[in-house]
Amino acid sequence: MGSQVANLPYPLDPLSLDEINTAISLVKKAHGETLLFNVVSLHEPRKAEFTAWLASPETAPRPKRVADVVVIAPGGKVFDGLVDLAGGSITKWELLDGEQPIITMEELQLVEHIVRKDPKVIEQCVISGIPAEDMHKVYCDPWTIGYDERFGSKARLQQALMYYRPDIDTCQYQYPLDFCPIYDADKGEIIAIDIPKIRRPLSKAPAVDYHPAAVEARGGYRTNLKPINITQPEGVSFKLTGREIEWQNWKFHIGFNYREGIILNNITFNDKGAVRPIFHRLSLAEMVVPYGNPERPHHRKHALDQGEYGAGYMTNSLALGCDCKGSIHYLDAHFPTRAGGVRTIKNAICIHEEDAGILFKHSDFRDDSVIVTRGRKFIISQVFTAANYEYAIYWIFHQDGTIQLEIKLTGILNTYAMLEDEDTNGWGTQVFPGVNAHNHQHLFCLRVDANVDGPDNTVFVNDAVPSEAPVGSPENYYGNGFYNKRTKLETEGQARTDYNGATSRTWEIANTNKLNPYSKKPVSYKLVSREVPGLLPKEGSLVWKRAPFARHAVHVTKYRDDELWPAGRHVPQTSGEPSRGISEWIGDGAAPIDNTDLVLWHTFGVTHFPSPEDFPVMPAEPMTLLLRPRNFFAGNPAMDVAPSFCTTPSQIAAGREAVVDASDRMSRLAFEGDDGTV
Amino acid sequence: MGSQVANLPYPLDPLSLDEINTAISLVKKAHGETLLFNVVSLHEPRKAEFTAWLASPETAPRPKRVADVVVIAPGGKVFDGLVDLAGGSITKWELLDGEQPIITMEELQLVEHIVRKDPKVIEQCVISGIPAEDMHKVYCDPWTIGYDERFGSKARLQQALMYYRPDIDTCQYQYPLDFCPIYDADKGEIIAIDIPKIRRPLSKAPAVDYHPAAVEARGGYRTNLKPINITQPEGVSFKLTGREIEWQNWKFHIGFNYREGIILNNITFNDKGAVRPIFHRLSLAEMVVPYGNPERPHHRKHALDQGEYGAGYMTNSLALGCDCKGSIHYLDAHFPTRAGGVRTIKNAICIHEEDAGILFKHSDFRDDSVIVTRGRKFIISQVFTAANYEYAIYWIFHQDGTIQLEIKLTGILNTYAMLEDEDTNGWGTQVFPGVNAHNHQHLFCLRVDANVDGPDNTVFVNDAVPSEAPVGSPENYYGNGFYNKRTKLETEGQARTDYNGATSRTWEIANTNKLNPYSKKPVSYKLVSREVPGLLPKEGSLVWKRAPFARHAVHVTKYRDDELWPAGRHVPQTSGEPSRGISEWIGDGAAPIDNTDLVLWHTFGVTHFPSPEDFPVMPAEPMTLLLRPRNFFAGNPAMDVAPSFCTTPSQIAAGREAVVDASDRMSRLAFEGDDGTV
Ligand SMILES: [Co+2]
Ligand SMILES: [Co+2]
Repeated sequence: MGSQVANLPYPLDPLSLDEINTAISLVKKAHGETLLFNVVSLHEPRKAEFTAWLASPETAPRPKRVADVVVIAPGGKVFDGLVDLAGGSITKWELLDGEQPIITMEELQLVEHIVRKDPKVIEQCVISGIPAEDMHKVYCDPWTIGYDERFGSKARLQQALMYYRPDIDTCQYQYPLDFCPIYDADKGEIIAIDIPKIRRPLSKAPAVDYHPAAVEARGGYRTNLKPINITQPEGVSFKLTGREIEWQNWKFHIGFNYREGIILNNITFNDKGAVRPIFHRLSLAEMVVPYGNPERPHHRKHALDQGEYGAGYMTNSLALGCDCKGSIHYLDAHFPTRAGGVRTIKNAICIHEEDAGILFKHSDFRDDSVIVTRGRKFIISQVFTAANYEYAIYWIFHQDGTIQLEIKLTGILNTYAMLEDEDTNGWGTQVFPGVNAHNHQHLFCLRVDANVDGPDNTVFVNDAVPSEAPVGSPENYYGNGFYNKRTKLETEGQARTDYNGATSRTWEIANTNKLNPYSKKPVSYKLVSREVPGLLPKEGSLVWKRAPFARHAVHVTKYRDDELWPAGRHVPQTSGEPSRGISEWIGDGAAPIDNTDLVLWHTFGVTHFPSPEDFPVMPAEPMTLLLRPRNFFAGNPAMDVAPSFCTTPSQIAAGREAVVDASDRMSRLAFEGDDGTV
Repeated sequence: MGSQVANLPYPLDPLSLDEINTAISLVKKAHGETLLFNVVSLHEPRKAEFTAWLASPETAPRPKRVADVVVIAPGGKVFDGLVDLAGGSITKWELLDGEQPIITMEELQLVEHIVRKDPKVIEQCVISGIPAEDMHKVYCDPWTIGYDERFGSKARLQQALMYYRPDIDTCQYQYPLDFCPIYDADKGEIIAIDIPKIRRPLSKAPAVDYHPAAVEARGGYRTNLKPINITQPEGVSFKLTGREIEWQNWKFHIGFNYREGIILNNITFNDKGAVRPIFHRLSLAEMVVPYGNPERPHHRKHALDQGEYGAGYMTNSLALGCDCKGSIHYLDAHFPTRAGGVRTIKNAICIHEEDAGILFKHSDFRDDSVIVTRGRKFIISQVFTAANYEYAIYWIFHQDGTIQLEIKLTGILNTYAMLEDEDTNGWGTQVFPGVNAHNHQHLFCLRVDANVDGPDNTVFVNDAVPSEAPVGSPENYYGNGFYNKRTKLETEGQARTDYNGATSRTWEIANTNKLNPYSKKPVSYKLVSREVPGLLPKEGSLVWKRAPFARHAVHVTKYRDDELWPAGRHVPQTSGEPSRGISEWIGDGAAPIDNTDLVLWHTFGVTHFPSPEDFPVMPAEPMTLLLRPRNFFAGNPAMDVAPSFCTTPSQIAAGREAVVDASDRMSRLAFEGDDGTV
């Protein structure tokens, strides 16, 4: 498709490989070669600066390219810095006190090797029933420690969840060990081991594995699935300019960072020639996975995966024809290595179209005249692996103006050892002999930097409620009256709102300055989200303190630069006292949010009570939410999608053929020529 | 695929064309040629008889084929009958008193012609601004009258919702008229007209149509969608024996009737050789679409579409490559005509497979060893048209044992006239000049005749709740404890339960006689449904009385033959005093439902506050629910689905190639050879 229009990156492009190298060189030159790089990532332009440039790219100054840098210097000293890449200068360099930056993949990978050699760990393994010479069969998933008041946040810690593999290819989560070493990154050693009062020796249950040799040994793969081919012989329907993408009236920029993974910027919809802004920026800004077993040390299992490990850092390199089928475009991701190199994740982002079934249909019962129009969807996706779990994230654009976020959970349950048939006390389920999978939640925080027909927006809570008038009263004689009760959220404090299933609650991001020409209601996008379990750890609990975004289904804040991550910038080992992130920003809640540039934060997800069918590898469990245009368009914006088939009353009355028959000629009857019965 | 094994139908097969003819002949011979046939449909065998045959088809008697017949004799006399087809005898013939059977498509189609010639209707049209000579441009959607206390249920009535088409191809819902004639079927005439106090003349707004000529006149169809082809060159992965279907360990029988449409019978899953029953029968048993405008006569708009018109009778004939893509198998449906003929709906049921994305995936962060397995789904679907609306029903089977019901709503809003910019009082939305689309709900009742590992089942309500112990207490020191609170539903009365979004409530259909070998919990299927708005018409309202199933998200009844339709057998013009159907059956609620053959009834759906983007034709709005195995299987039942790609730690350590690379070779890079940028 030709070469790039300009060599200049779009201001929201992730740092290129060269830019990361430049930033690292500048930092090394100024602060020495011994630094360990945790983060070298785009410091996004200030919104005012960016939007001024966007409004007038020829005349307004182009936002500078700035690198956000976090390093760990010898002695565990953590520095936050900003590097002006073109200027070659470090514009900020700040020593942090008692804050721990994100834990990188390299840091995670180190721990297992240390654990295997630690005499106290070896001692515990022997107690568990593993001979000392089998330490190469011992594995650990290093996790952020959450917060442990015995150690605080000065030392950089990980907790090592311990497992055993009788065979290198065996799924280790079948063989959890019952103790938990704690690793100090500065010392490079194990500083403590949490040992339970009740000991649970290594399970002797034979493994049930999902790898090919194991499946073959059990009788092999099923052979009765015939291939389904999905092809686009004329090419795809989207086009890219740099990282700006256009598809079916949609246009947006695809960003990506170490933390949130996919970021969608400057989302607009071309409404009959008028390019209308909808969202300034969409991302998953944070998540938390609290486990529900209150027994020590399981309370520490509540990963804030994005702030503590990074949805970008953990992203999979995707493979054509496996993760996605059809005609795919991939984007790579570049990240620093600890030592100051660059690693590239090939195919980090998948971009493709899918058939979406019926977009709309109507038949007239009088004459069977009919229109059937098939829909198409456009999907920007990534998959990331957080130790045992995988999260597949699909940002889906529809032709009718809807944006859907779908998340599939797959991978493997986090497991803990149990004596066979030990009472789990309701905090978990025995999913396999000797394997206790604890109750947990997966809670995600969607950040919606709204721009619905302009930056000044207002949020309303919508509740479907019956008429207040009683049955038999003149206003509601037959009792059927009901309506949409709208409540304006006036302040950040008032905007802390919960889901209400009984009223099918939705949240409406409206522009009250623009009314729909027909309904006379403000143009809006409505958040329709039905999987909103709420945080089950109680008010005042450690999780509640550390993950303030999860206290309510929705928070709304006035837009302020750098308020991106609602559990704070540096998340590992925060105590939650005081809470970082959104609770700090909201403060006393007095800031007005009526008709202003605002950000809506939505926490949704699932509560997962494991069962054996989730094990040893979990069939993908999907969850979804929608951002739907309501009173935004003057009519169905997809009426000009060509129908597959259409007949009209006039043509039927005249005995003529179909007006349109563009039905897909590649479709076939399953049993051509017969009726399929055997 | 060869000829049918036996000529005998499966006992749950719909009546064949020949069987319908036989029943009609027998009835005509006995009761005369002047009868109008409303229903000639399979009278399903008694469950005890059917299950005895199923257990031992060689020795137990084969259930007789019996036709359930409803006719209207001259004078509006309604008879319910049963016809023993092989025996050639009428075993039941009963005159009903004040009950109105389902309204057929033919009855609906009659009314418009009568309306156009009625002098009082013409008078009202002229008042609305339509010249008398333009009555051919006047249309009506005849609806069941709901219940109107002025007329009761002795006369067979329809209300005619009136519209105008300036052009034969124009969407009439843009031009609603403000008055409502009432048609008496026995008299064949209009017996009354409801005329509002405020008159609303015919809108003069120019039409915005969705038919091809109209779209062409506005600039034509978009041309930037490239085709997506979906093909199965080696054929499909399912096989049929009569109407029994097998796919990926699932086996079930596909029934169909005039009322519920698709019925899935005798659903089993082959679990490593053990054929385990799960559901005896699944269907959508009833629905109700209450409109929320309390002003007369809009309170009458609350169609119980299945009991009043029939999801089978209203079913569309589907077209290859339009409604469904890929390799499709269709089944036809046969119904009686009023005069005693048979009409056939070709392609009433669509059967096909679709790719389902990632079935499961896991990567090991240590060595990037990975398994990715793609899923497949199997879909039995139909689309039916209820006047303005279309409902697309998808019964989806997954490889992991999940059954999903997805419903897409499309078609056209029901509309009423308004003065331009008249206050809708919150009961509706002006979606187009002069067009008021009233608030409404679409509530569906899923009937689950359960058979989870045998007929004796028990239902539990599951609520995700925090530990009762306070933060800081020894039992819940860090406050993170939470668990699944299970409440057994002991009686039919206690089983009237509502949704609770705050606890992510699910309902578990368990077999307490069989425990999972690992979790030691009863094997179960769990109803996971998140779109459960509850009935907004108030307790005691007309809708509440007529649609008792909609009063609660879940009812559970002991299985009793003939308790199929929860608003009663004959639904039109019921007053709701007393309520028919499920409220009768439950009575005082004392019947125990612990460990017995039971039926779970689930009412779910959406509340729809229209907006202009729904008009003039509505982009499909999906809703979904799941029936998921929990503690049913000993492990993931889909582990033997062959992976697309797999590497293992041992093979990576040895530097060898992938163990499995079966990635789809038809997939392509979108911009082969370049990076896709322009
Ligand atoms: Co989970
Ligand atoms: Co609707």
